[in-house]
Amino acid sequence: MSLIVVGSMAYDAIETPFGKTDRIVGGAATYIAYAASNFIKPINQVSIVGNDFASEELDELQKRGVDLGGVEIKKDKKSFFWSGRYHMDMNTRDTLVTELNAFLDFNPVIPESFQGSEFVMLGNITPGLQMNVVQQLKKRPKLIAMDTMNFWMDNALDDLKKLLTMVDVLMVNDSEARQLSGEFSLVKAARAIMKMGPRFLIIKKGEHGALLFHGDQVFVAPALPLEEVFDPTGAGDTFAGGFMGWLASTRDISFENMKTAIIVGSAMASFCVEKFGPTRLKEITRTDIDARIRQFVDLVNFDIELV
Amino acid sequence: MSLIVVGSMAYDAIETPFGKTDRIVGGAATYIAYAASNFIKPINQVSIVGNDFASEELDELQKRGVDLGGVEIKKDKKSFFWSGRYHMDMNTRDTLVTELNAFLDFNPVIPESFQGSEFVMLGNITPGLQMNVVQQLKKRPKLIAMDTMNFWMDNALDDLKKLLTMVDVLMVNDSEARQLSGEFSLVKAARAIMKMGPRFLIIKKGEHGALLFHGDQVFVAPALPLEEVFDPTGAGDTFAGGFMGWLASTRDISFENMKTAIIVGSAMASFCVEKFGPTRLKEITRTDIDARIRQFVDLVNFDIELV
Repeated sequence: MSLIVVGSMAYDAIETPFGKTDRIVGGAATYIAYAASNFIKPINQVSIVGNDFASEELDELQKRGVDLGGVEIKKDKKSFFWSGRYHMDMNTRDTLVTELNAFLDFNPVIPESFQGSEFVMLGNITPGLQMNVVQQLKKRPKLIAMDTMNFWMDNALDDLKKLLTMVDVLMVNDSEARQLSGEFSLVKAARAIMKMGPRFLIIKKGEHGALLFHGDQVFVAPALPLEEVFDPTGAGDTFAGGFMGWLASTRDISFENMKTAIIVGSAMASFCVEKFGPTRLKEITRTDIDARIRQFVDLVNFDIELV
Repeated sequence: MSLIVVGSMAYDAIETPFGKTDRIVGGAATYIAYAASNFIKPINQVSIVGNDFASEELDELQKRGVDLGGVEIKKDKKSFFWSGRYHMDMNTRDTLVTELNAFLDFNPVIPESFQGSEFVMLGNITPGLQMNVVQQLKKRPKLIAMDTMNFWMDNALDDLKKLLTMVDVLMVNDSEARQLSGEFSLVKAARAIMKMGPRFLIIKKGEHGALLFHGDQVFVAPALPLEEVFDPTGAGDTFAGGFMGWLASTRDISFENMKTAIIVGSAMASFCVEKFGPTRLKEITRTDIDARIRQFVDLVNFDIELV
């Protein structure tokens, strides 16, 4: 059992109302790998970095069972760099700098040794490249999940719609679900999106939790009420990593187990936002994670006897 | 066992993106009574209406176990009338007309026969009048809950703060919790508000559900994902009615039972928004309610085995 993770590995500089950090490791695939590695090994990582990506960071990922055989190192370019500033509500942010650098050349190639992976997580990159990855897979994986964003709905909708027919799980936020479907009601949006292809839809609502749709079934996971969201960067990718890591480790893609996976993803995301970048994800142990999942059990559990 | 309900009984005219209705019965105490009467009898109603309040409506309430001994009928005035128009998102609305009419004379008097009620729900009226009710009670009830709104935080903060030291449960929405506490984080807001008096705090988040705080404990209830919110008028009061009705009927004010009460309130609110005004609340039976509560169980229930 193994998990392919495709996406960016990058550096970020982040400002929040609580502080700022210079150049800290980031990128969707980095967060996904750090989160998923708590549950499943190997993580088959497919990404691209520049000549400035710290070897200590690559070593750290390898130590956690991340196979970097699909990570290209561009010797003549720097890594993808993003800088942004969050507003007080932590839901909106201004992008200050985007330097794609090496990421402009990203053309994911699945190494022969990665073939046969049962689980695939396509981080948010162009739908064309995500599709390219799917087409390289010689055997249909057990489960393909993908993230995307409003930018691709505006600029690459045809590719995105083609891709949606090829995947099992789509993860978007509430405004993206509304845009993609043209429906305001999330229940109607979910129904419309599942008709486009994915059998499972996850709608992420940040501090308001997440919804999982499948056929006529629906599950709601809360976000953990936190004193402070210190830095929300990477929370969505960390959620995806926890979700896919759990599914890959249990090899059970029933709706029932997906509910549990949503809680695991939510628990991982609740750690992510506690410190800048993936800092907190590197500190926690499986014991911490289990304790956090227990908090989620207490958070939603209630007793009622009905006649 | 009985429940005192204090608040407005009124007429509303409502426009939503789905349609409009002329003069339909409304008012916080009306919604609270309709919801609570599914669980507890009698409801000891304290309110005021004008000469135009339909006797059929009063009969209907009485039939459901609502004791109208505390409802004054002003022969020379009309009932409180409110008219509003909801925007597409159903979270914002414009008030078109507010005619206080008889409600201007509201000076709640607790009839002798209502004394000794163990549960009290103070609907959203001026904090001064809410306090006046509490002071009339000869024996401290087992549980006093109150609703309020931003208007009173702006215009009657001193009275509101005094009242908060006299009640057990405060129900507000998220923006009101932030305004009252001066804290953006709802966890910090809850801690600050509980220091002002109430041992229990419910923060209502509309389509995002509700949070219950008590000491260091927290519980999250989802809202039922609905295809359409047809008319949100009265949903918060219906929630309060279900919550208090459940508590009064079980006479158990433990945190554990409050969790269940929050789910019951959420289930009742999910019915309320399905049709204009309290229309849907008048149609449903206890069987419908139990089926709806089962949907909530499915909505949040998940299995995980931790080491």
